[in-house]
Amino acid sequence: MNEQLERLNRLPLRDDLRGQTPYGAPQLEVPVLLNVNENTHGLPQEVADAIAESVRQAVAGLNRYPDREFTELRERLASYLGHGLSVENIWAGNGSNEVLQHILQAFGGPGRTAMSFPPTYSMYPLLANGTGTEYIAGHRAADFTLSASSAADQVREAKPNIVLLCTPNNPTGTALGLDVVEAVYEAGSASNAVVIVDEAYAEFSHAGTPSALSLLPGRERLIVSRTMSKAFALAGARLGYMAAAPEVTDALRLVRLPYHLSAVTQATANAALAHAPALLANVEDIKAQRDRIVSELTELGLQPAESDANFVLFGGLENPRKTWQGLLDAGVLIRDVGIPGHLRVTAGTEAETTAFLTRLRELLSA
Amino acid sequence: MNEQLERLNRLPLRDDLRGQTPYGAPQLEVPVLLNVNENTHGLPQEVADAIAESVRQAVAGLNRYPDREFTELRERLASYLGHGLSVENIWAGNGSNEVLQHILQAFGGPGRTAMSFPPTYSMYPLLANGTGTEYIAGHRAADFTLSASSAADQVREAKPNIVLLCTPNNPTGTALGLDVVEAVYEAGSASNAVVIVDEAYAEFSHAGTPSALSLLPGRERLIVSRTMSKAFALAGARLGYMAAAPEVTDALRLVRLPYHLSAVTQATANAALAHAPALLANVEDIKAQRDRIVSELTELGLQPAESDANFVLFGGLENPRKTWQGLLDAGVLIRDVGIPGHLRVTAGTEAETTAFLTRLRELLSA
Repeated sequence: MNEQLERLNRLPLRDDLRGQTPYGAPQLEVPVLLNVNENTHGLPQEVADAIAESVRQAVAGLNRYPDREFTELRERLASYLGHGLSVENIWAGNGSNEVLQHILQAFGGPGRTAMSFPPTYSMYPLLANGTGTEYIAGHRAADFTLSASSAADQVREAKPNIVLLCTPNNPTGTALGLDVVEAVYEAGSASNAVVIVDEAYAEFSHAGTPSALSLLPGRERLIVSRTMSKAFALAGARLGYMAAAPEVTDALRLVRLPYHLSAVTQATANAALAHAPALLANVEDIKAQRDRIVSELTELGLQPAESDANFVLFGGLENPRKTWQGLLDAGVLIRDVGIPGHLRVTAGTEAETTAFLTRLRELLSA
Repeated sequence: MNEQLERLNRLPLRDDLRGQTPYGAPQLEVPVLLNVNENTHGLPQEVADAIAESVRQAVAGLNRYPDREFTELRERLASYLGHGLSVENIWAGNGSNEVLQHILQAFGGPGRTAMSFPPTYSMYPLLANGTGTEYIAGHRAADFTLSASSAADQVREAKPNIVLLCTPNNPTGTALGLDVVEAVYEAGSASNAVVIVDEAYAEFSHAGTPSALSLLPGRERLIVSRTMSKAFALAGARLGYMAAAPEVTDALRLVRLPYHLSAVTQATANAALAHAPALLANVEDIKAQRDRIVSELTELGLQPAESDANFVLFGGLENPRKTWQGLLDAGVLIRDVGIPGHLRVTAGTEAETTAFLTRLRELLSA
């Protein structure tokens, strides 16, 4: 390993990359995988069959480049989101990371800044760095909440070019009120800031939680990003997307690589969207398991954060690393997100959730 | 349109993107598409069936993130390339554009330069720009050739951080000798330059044309990029890849977005590589059509460049735009690559190639 690192260091690597390690949670093969907020319920057979058939039909034409504008897919995404959106409001990429990268390439880059409020999605600073955008770390209250006035004050102070708001927030799970988005958008007008609301987990929110999609009309600097990786159970298909004013779509078209979305990806996502109700049928069960985790962890004397996502961050652990290892030894992989005293667990199937809770109870009473 | 542009200009777009138009050839629906160097022969049914079955098997697991290291795919790519390469020598992306972007992100970026020798692949300056890398345009001889001494002199003079050599060169079609690669690599040692040899069209080269893969041992700054879009007839699947020293792979791992290659893409490419001989069976026919184009265009009094690719650049046209439009009116789409007096045509099936040559003959005698 040291020899390999030496060889890497002899290459003319960019200075800011030296000593870095690749991003990503460990990919381990254990029975219960609750570490990367996947939808562990899987795909209903009818949807799997529809995707396979859709791809089968696309294969014959794979010698041709795909539709560079992925028009059918954008129409289907617009129709799924509703809110009066149409094809010119929509953009997509290979995972929402790529969509965020496009946004940072168009509106960030050298000499510009992007701000988010840690603890939040750990890719934000990496995406900023990868596009030469300076990253500004804001802050949250001790209980990880972020009020409209605090967020707006921080944005007014820092004058960022881009603000990233994650709601429900990863890794804490809690949704922001729309008042926070409105206040940040307003505060960002001084620096003409693009405001990205990352709603990757929106479908898991408690009933009545509004989406920032409702704020889009009249706000041309507002972008709402979504993904098919979570509620749609398609993490392996890599399809993230965003909704915004048509001119934002025009801007992202200037920085995308041509034909960035393969015909196979388009066929997969199109079939999935044609069966959205069936694919989303497991969301209610996942929310029930999520609420069960919050309730049972509280009974165990731990401090789970309120969650509108398909995962729960919980504190009150004396030795999170030991707990994480104890769970892994029992075949249950969860995530250490680097917050002292805390771990994060994905809401799995009922059986997976039971396995996690049972083993955790044993570890805490040992 | 003007109103849309005005709205775009009110957004805080990066200054260097203002006034730009999105990259890409027109996607028109006409009977004979010979404009973007696709493999018009299509996929043999047995390979299409194998890809569909491979994806069908992958669909059940799409709720999980894909193998971030795409190990099976890298093994298959190494095995296809031969030259003693193995998994740690290989990296891949959604099209070779993404692989080149990874390389520019790792070794280029702000304060660094990338050089190529126009006329060449028109994405190079765009990829440089998109990663904040300053682009340096070298030059070729009037007949578009590039000698070892000229290339090396230009590299010694410009001291670039990255050199991009395209062979067979797009859009001219001619392959570079390995002496050019060796000389550029040697000349680049002063600036510790990473040398990328883009062999997207390598499989179409005349028999006996050596690959730069044979130069990899002992050259840790050398990278050979390839694609499955052309000879493999998989433009729609978006799979580009590269071979280099293992530390180059380590470097690219630092800049890739996590899970950038979907499980569907991996399944598609794995099945295609398992049937490589069947997929590549049409290459000889395409080469025959390519040589036929060169020969018949010469008879027509035009000046086709020697080609080792699946396309032919030809000069001697008084009014290329009029010729291009005349062909399009007859349902034959070829490419105006912006070189005065020239057009570029992809070698199609025998029937497509005949349609092109017949119509061109009519236009020239009219």
